[in-house]
Amino acid sequence: MVLHLVPRWSARLFRASPRWKKTYTQRASAQLKWLGCPRSVYSPLACRAYSKVSGSPEVMLTPERYPVQRLPFSTVSEEDLAAFECIIPGRVITDPEQLQTCNVDWLRTVRGCSKVLLRPQTSEEVSQILRHCYKRNLAVNPQGGNTGMVGGSVPVFDEVILSTALMNQVISFHDVSGILVCQAGCVLEELNRYVQERDFIMPLDLGAKGSCHIGGNVATNAGGLRFLRYGSLRGTVLGLEVVLADGTILNCLTSLRKDNTGYDLKQMFIGSEGTLGVITAVSIVCPPRPKAVNVAFLGCPGFTEVLQTFRTCKGQLGEILSAFEFMDAECMQLVGQHLHLINPVQESPFYVLVETSGSSAGHDAEKLTNVLEQVLNSGLVIDGTMATDQRKVQMLWALRERITEALSRDGYVFKYDLSLPVERLYDLVIDLRTRLGPRAKHVVGYGHLGDGNLHLNVTAEAFSQELLGALEPYVYAWTAEQRGSVSAEHGLGFKKKNVLGYSKPLVAVRLMQQLKAMLDPKGILNPYKTLPARA
Amino acid sequence: MVLHLVPRWSARLFRASPRWKKTYTQRASAQLKWLGCPRSVYSPLACRAYSKVSGSPEVMLTPERYPVQRLPFSTVSEEDLAAFECIIPGRVITDPEQLQTCNVDWLRTVRGCSKVLLRPQTSEEVSQILRHCYKRNLAVNPQGGNTGMVGGSVPVFDEVILSTALMNQVISFHDVSGILVCQAGCVLEELNRYVQERDFIMPLDLGAKGSCHIGGNVATNAGGLRFLRYGSLRGTVLGLEVVLADGTILNCLTSLRKDNTGYDLKQMFIGSEGTLGVITAVSIVCPPRPKAVNVAFLGCPGFTEVLQTFRTCKGQLGEILSAFEFMDAECMQLVGQHLHLINPVQESPFYVLVETSGSSAGHDAEKLTNVLEQVLNSGLVIDGTMATDQRKVQMLWALRERITEALSRDGYVFKYDLSLPVERLYDLVIDLRTRLGPRAKHVVGYGHLGDGNLHLNVTAEAFSQELLGALEPYVYAWTAEQRGSVSAEHGLGFKKKNVLGYSKPLVAVRLMQQLKAMLDPKGILNPYKTLPARA
Repeated sequence: MVLHLVPRWSARLFRASPRWKKTYTQRASAQLKWLGCPRSVYSPLACRAYSKVSGSPEVMLTPERYPVQRLPFSTVSEEDLAAFECIIPGRVITDPEQLQTCNVDWLRTVRGCSKVLLRPQTSEEVSQILRHCYKRNLAVNPQGGNTGMVGGSVPVFDEVILSTALMNQVISFHDVSGILVCQAGCVLEELNRYVQERDFIMPLDLGAKGSCHIGGNVATNAGGLRFLRYGSLRGTVLGLEVVLADGTILNCLTSLRKDNTGYDLKQMFIGSEGTLGVITAVSIVCPPRPKAVNVAFLGCPGFTEVLQTFRTCKGQLGEILSAFEFMDAECMQLVGQHLHLINPVQESPFYVLVETSGSSAGHDAEKLTNVLEQVLNSGLVIDGTMATDQRKVQMLWALRERITEALSRDGYVFKYDLSLPVERLYDLVIDLRTRLGPRAKHVVGYGHLGDGNLHLNVTAEAFSQELLGALEPYVYAWTAEQRGSVSAEHGLGFKKKNVLGYSKPLVAVRLMQQLKAMLDPKGILNPYKTLPARA
Repeated sequence: MVLHLVPRWSARLFRASPRWKKTYTQRASAQLKWLGCPRSVYSPLACRAYSKVSGSPEVMLTPERYPVQRLPFSTVSEEDLAAFECIIPGRVITDPEQLQTCNVDWLRTVRGCSKVLLRPQTSEEVSQILRHCYKRNLAVNPQGGNTGMVGGSVPVFDEVILSTALMNQVISFHDVSGILVCQAGCVLEELNRYVQERDFIMPLDLGAKGSCHIGGNVATNAGGLRFLRYGSLRGTVLGLEVVLADGTILNCLTSLRKDNTGYDLKQMFIGSEGTLGVITAVSIVCPPRPKAVNVAFLGCPGFTEVLQTFRTCKGQLGEILSAFEFMDAECMQLVGQHLHLINPVQESPFYVLVETSGSSAGHDAEKLTNVLEQVLNSGLVIDGTMATDQRKVQMLWALRERITEALSRDGYVFKYDLSLPVERLYDLVIDLRTRLGPRAKHVVGYGHLGDGNLHLNVTAEAFSQELLGALEPYVYAWTAEQRGSVSAEHGLGFKKKNVLGYSKPLVAVRLMQQLKAMLDPKGILNPYKTLPARA
């Protein structure tokens, strides 16, 4: 019965709008051609790897671009290297070429000069490493997939790089509750594949899924594309194992949905960006794999119509709405220009991607069809296309997911990740276009509209202090005036640590510094990150 | 169309099982009679109030029953009272009769001897009160609706009672995002009514909703009946205002879905039971009011069938499943005996309550009907009844929600609130019946099966050290062996603080103590609660 519903549903759409049919059929050949390329060429993982090895010039050392001074940590000595070699034989990397990748963030905006990369396999090894570093006052930069946006995942100076890459084992999976326990270095996409085979999905998804580690996701409290439906990691992460600065192992790796015994210590480490402890294992609850996923990609005539489309979807799709993303026309232009992706709908000032995930293909299709008819007939949407089969779903998602990558190919990118009242979300983009004029190549806005989260990006031929000066603190002050957040999901890392005060009062910043001092009294864990040097 | 679906759906059930029809019709008159009484007589609020003012004997003073010594805090002096009167004129209560209720928990198991109750209206007043208490080294017991289960909400000795009862104003509500900002003393049921009028619901619901305060809910990280669907307060609470021990106001009262600027300080206060700060205001995201709610009440022949029914419901109802509660035959007997509630289905060893909440009455009814046919035909369920209209829905919910109240009328109640692997959830109840024999009046098990949360209750004519000795540490050790939690949602308060070690390692307990010392160096906030005196 369910299978028969799909053509009926398309047929209803054709009746509702001849344009719809036209788009859906006319683009089919283009879409097939596009999908003819091997998938890996288009996956974020492959593209990120590509951008790393491209022949672009050396990235400037962080202390040369930013005013930051090395703190009086010790320097790694031959004895330290020998001690590390004792703990993790054969996994102490000092080869400069191998170190190069780990010293530079994937956006190629910050660069450290660490001389050693450690690749432990177990929590016990991490513990021994940290015990040594703590005793010796050696600074440590915990590193996952190095896909962060704010320079939090690479050293600023010569910090020891502690990589979770070899801590990539699934510890357990419970196929009734969907609770996954795994080491911190498991790659998100691989975990998703693992749980999908067991009829579940990971509760988070993001563009960097092919490279990012689950430990890094938790350490940065990653939001991403499924946040609207499955909520924050603060709810889905059930337990953590963390190694503290002095090497103590804190085992809170429970798999219980509810546990009100004392303070929930794991919350301190979620979103602490490796500054309070090193996450070594994660227990996380996975939702059941939805039986039906539908994606609609729509063109809207204005931002007001984007908002009204969101309200309509939220009201009528209810519990099956799993994503509501938007992007502006300049984003579409960039993914076309740099990645050769094809716009599947009529050119529009704005585009939205609506995803539903549910347990009944028939019911979900009926709900979505009703909504789409309504938004099309009322003029909220100019044109649209829809997909249910996985290939086409991925194709539509790529338009949104690969914007970051297209931007990084456009030049130097000034990135802002803001939470704003949804009604004012796009005003800042318009404002900045006027303010910056021809100094910027592109000023684009896209993001998770459903969560009030704007990704504002400005590209230029190269980094320029003048452009930076025009952007900051202007963007932060504008955001603070709206009582927004200057970092919705990217965290503060190195690049945003000094703007914390725009979103948090002094009392809060001081309390954060107290917490840091309590957990890491020598300040060896990911120094120069997250918190401003002084409140 | 939607309206017509309901009879069709019943008709299908009748065909599937004649028993179903019989139950559904035969009980109708009894149900109507039951609903003939004014609703307030049956609401948890009214009943709790009733149990408080009943003529039962005086509750024993806490230090007489439990081994606890007063810490060297100051004693409230006439000068202190005058200072309080200056801060909150006319709201300093010293009348012994008025103090009586606030000194005793609603279960009537612990009793303090505070001489003063303070009723501030604003955060600024709370701040001034705490500044004074901190300076004077006066211990403070923050109190919300005083509906806690573990003696956390009343003084142990003569702590100053700081009530949030007059802090009951809604600050703002955003009718698109559903974000509510309100003072900590708002009663949950009143908030739910407020947001329901605006087409939203509160993301949590619990039996004590008629009395409990939202600030207390957050301070105890209350779980409750909607946890399965809307998740934990750690995800739905967006911001908090908290007054720290020394009177400092920490304003983290943002209303943003995403905010990764620094450490998420509010998480420290969620579930800290008033020991780290006093929550004065809450920002919380409310889900849209479901357009359709269906409740089925089913009788199962055994616990294995309860589990299989849960699996079937989870798999097939997917995103619309909003509650899956269970209770055993003894629970049903008690709500019948003490509250005169009528069992709407055939007598069975177990009962489950399944609730769906969704955006389409037709779709939801179809999904639920299919599931019910399946569980009935396969013998997982013996008998059942179903409700869609609000009155009947409430009637069925009362059977589950009012168990706590029925138990409290049965005698002294030893209460355990455990998280356990769902497969072993009921084994402990069976085990204890054998172990305790006639020493217990009743040993019952019920709770939130969908969250792996068992409420295990043992009733006796009166409190007895011998029975307590047979129960503890046995129950805790049994739970620890299953890697469960000795407090799933009730917290530790006064009565469970010494069992923290059964669910948390020593390293964690020590870290909690460090956190307490950092935030409340004099230990004046809710002393003798949550953390053991020594790790």
